[in-house]
Amino acid sequence: MKTIQSGITAPKGFLAGGINCGIKKKKMDLSLVYSEKPSTCAGTFTKNIVKSPTVLFSSENITNNIQAVVINSGIANACTGKRGYNDTKKTAEIISKLLNIQKKNVLVFSTGVIGVYLDIKKIEAGLKKLAPSLSKKAHNNASEAILTTDTVKKEIAVEFMIKGKKVRLGGMAKGSGMIAPDMATMLAFITSDINIEKKVLTGIFKETVNKTFNRITIDGDMSTNDSVVILCNAMAENKLITEKNIKELKIFYNSLYYVLDELTKQIIKDGEGATKFIKVNILNSKNEKEALKIGFKIANSPLVKTAFYGCDANWGRILAAAGSAGVKFDPDKIEIKFGKHALFKNGLPVKFSEKTLKKYLQKKEIDLFFNLKTGSNNIVIYTSDLTENYIKINAHYRS
Amino acid sequence: MKTIQSGITAPKGFLAGGINCGIKKKKMDLSLVYSEKPSTCAGTFTKNIVKSPTVLFSSENITNNIQAVVINSGIANACTGKRGYNDTKKTAEIISKLLNIQKKNVLVFSTGVIGVYLDIKKIEAGLKKLAPSLSKKAHNNASEAILTTDTVKKEIAVEFMIKGKKVRLGGMAKGSGMIAPDMATMLAFITSDINIEKKVLTGIFKETVNKTFNRITIDGDMSTNDSVVILCNAMAENKLITEKNIKELKIFYNSLYYVLDELTKQIIKDGEGATKFIKVNILNSKNEKEALKIGFKIANSPLVKTAFYGCDANWGRILAAAGSAGVKFDPDKIEIKFGKHALFKNGLPVKFSEKTLKKYLQKKEIDLFFNLKTGSNNIVIYTSDLTENYIKINAHYRS
Repeated sequence: MKTIQSGITAPKGFLAGGINCGIKKKKMDLSLVYSEKPSTCAGTFTKNIVKSPTVLFSSENITNNIQAVVINSGIANACTGKRGYNDTKKTAEIISKLLNIQKKNVLVFSTGVIGVYLDIKKIEAGLKKLAPSLSKKAHNNASEAILTTDTVKKEIAVEFMIKGKKVRLGGMAKGSGMIAPDMATMLAFITSDINIEKKVLTGIFKETVNKTFNRITIDGDMSTNDSVVILCNAMAENKLITEKNIKELKIFYNSLYYVLDELTKQIIKDGEGATKFIKVNILNSKNEKEALKIGFKIANSPLVKTAFYGCDANWGRILAAAGSAGVKFDPDKIEIKFGKHALFKNGLPVKFSEKTLKKYLQKKEIDLFFNLKTGSNNIVIYTSDLTENYIKINAHYRS
Repeated sequence: MKTIQSGITAPKGFLAGGINCGIKKKKMDLSLVYSEKPSTCAGTFTKNIVKSPTVLFSSENITNNIQAVVINSGIANACTGKRGYNDTKKTAEIISKLLNIQKKNVLVFSTGVIGVYLDIKKIEAGLKKLAPSLSKKAHNNASEAILTTDTVKKEIAVEFMIKGKKVRLGGMAKGSGMIAPDMATMLAFITSDINIEKKVLTGIFKETVNKTFNRITIDGDMSTNDSVVILCNAMAENKLITEKNIKELKIFYNSLYYVLDELTKQIIKDGEGATKFIKVNILNSKNEKEALKIGFKIANSPLVKTAFYGCDANWGRILAAAGSAGVKFDPDKIEIKFGKHALFKNGLPVKFSEKTLKKYLQKKEIDLFFNLKTGSNNIVIYTSDLTENYIKINAHYRS
């Protein structure tokens, strides 16, 4: 597998575009992804009780073969009742006419402020401009037009061989607050030209999303609109991958995991106000469920996150957070390390050099190891620190 | 019932004191409360798996009749293994000798940095100074010496009549970060001269703490040391209150609830960096459990808290937070109000004047109403907003 300088249009047959249609003042706010051939799809959607109409619409349509994806940013079109749902349907209708495809082969997504109606005329005018200008090059515009408070585009593309054919995966995503497991204000779109059975794709996508997008957190908040979808249009012309192709499935799994993992890293690194990328490693737990509970309690603790921001080797807050996760463990067994530096072991503080630790904590990427020593399960959760800028962004941006 | 200008020494027979013993540089850090007669007690302690030795020691001793309470601030003496436990025991021994009481009649509490050992010599020298200087007046010193990042003392005292006798309740508490339900870095000490049966006291105390101290949150973090205890020394000389005295129990319940509620309000108002006191009212839920889940999800959401800080009428974040609480509800039934101003109703945004709402949100005290319309249960959770100052305090203070 190798990384290539591209994005969502890297796989054969995919085109994209992004423009400003007037939802935002100047920044791009309307994105379109198009596949020359209908694509086999899979998707994961927010588990929030309050779902935006786009989530309701697209989670239904995803059972079909998809050819176009429309995404607007700036307005989430959530909590907008019937009118909101109609606006989503109307968006699909408009683009289906423009591209001469069927409405049922369209997905629609929105991100931004909740409780505000879309101006469907702006969307229509925007799509009329976008549809004829779709291109390979415009993956960067497409990925820019889906951003809200993000400060950088999040793109990736790779290529690898499957049964003698070159296959590509491309992706784009947006963060950057309200990030927590179970799809929390993230949108991510993955494309591939692989030829793969829907059932197999669904299984692999679910598993890789669970190990990547469901293991990151910025502020523990979960949004109404989060969605991660994959479109595979079979244009690489490899022989259809089914559950019998163990070797090929493994290659695809690994490549897809890499793409999703890279996108989640880009999301966390661009977390609202974040200055650090923190890997919370929960080691040797009895099972994954307990490890995730402890890991997310640590990763979401404002006291832990502010300590990382202050480059403070404050392992006490980590232990206190873990202790309140609702999981039984023996504090006397716990080992806490920052990188290779042990801070707590066998129920006692380990003497450490404040200077050495400060130096380690001043790095942009921190590895926290929380070792339970009760089993053999290892997981990692990505998070960021909590800074004054998070407050500034969220006190003054209506999302 | 009337409020009186005093604190923990308001009830008959209680004396107190507070000094600096050298744990902190200059600020007071050692507090002592003494009752002339052994007191009937009740207590609630942190549910964190990681418990400080003071919690282990005091939750055992509280079955006895207590005469002295020692509290130090600056060092939490948590995660300090056997030595930590021995230091707590030693503290109890020192004060029991100085006051000529039994060790089993002493409670010891600590609050501050985790994972640092106490210097027992400083404690000893401090207690030697404190013991002979105990006074009625020094309730203010006692309440100052238990503070950490708090900016103000938290005290209250009331008096009321029970069976023709004047009875008093006094209290002091500390916050101010790591505040969340199930006793999260709070210490609170309540005294009374009421004559009351232990069983009855335990029941009433548990219930009132549940409705006050367990319903506040600043940052959702729960500490290793949190404890709320009450000492009743019977010196008001009322006839012993038992479960048969329904009328008197009600009077006592109401007075105690008032005292605890006032202390929790003081804690939230002095929350780290807080500029606003927010009441999260969850109305008409099916049951208390669901209401608490939704209420705490809203009250702990960084996005909700920063919106309040920014005086932004961002009801979408409230609905999104509620929707991720893991409780099923119908978004179309929900009504959201800030004070008397409706923002969301019947699944649709309500048009409101940004100016009017801004004005309301600029107040120091905000009432948020989240009406589920599925039952008749009402609860309220107190919280604060989230500001840059919270970050500053916690990035640079090792707690």
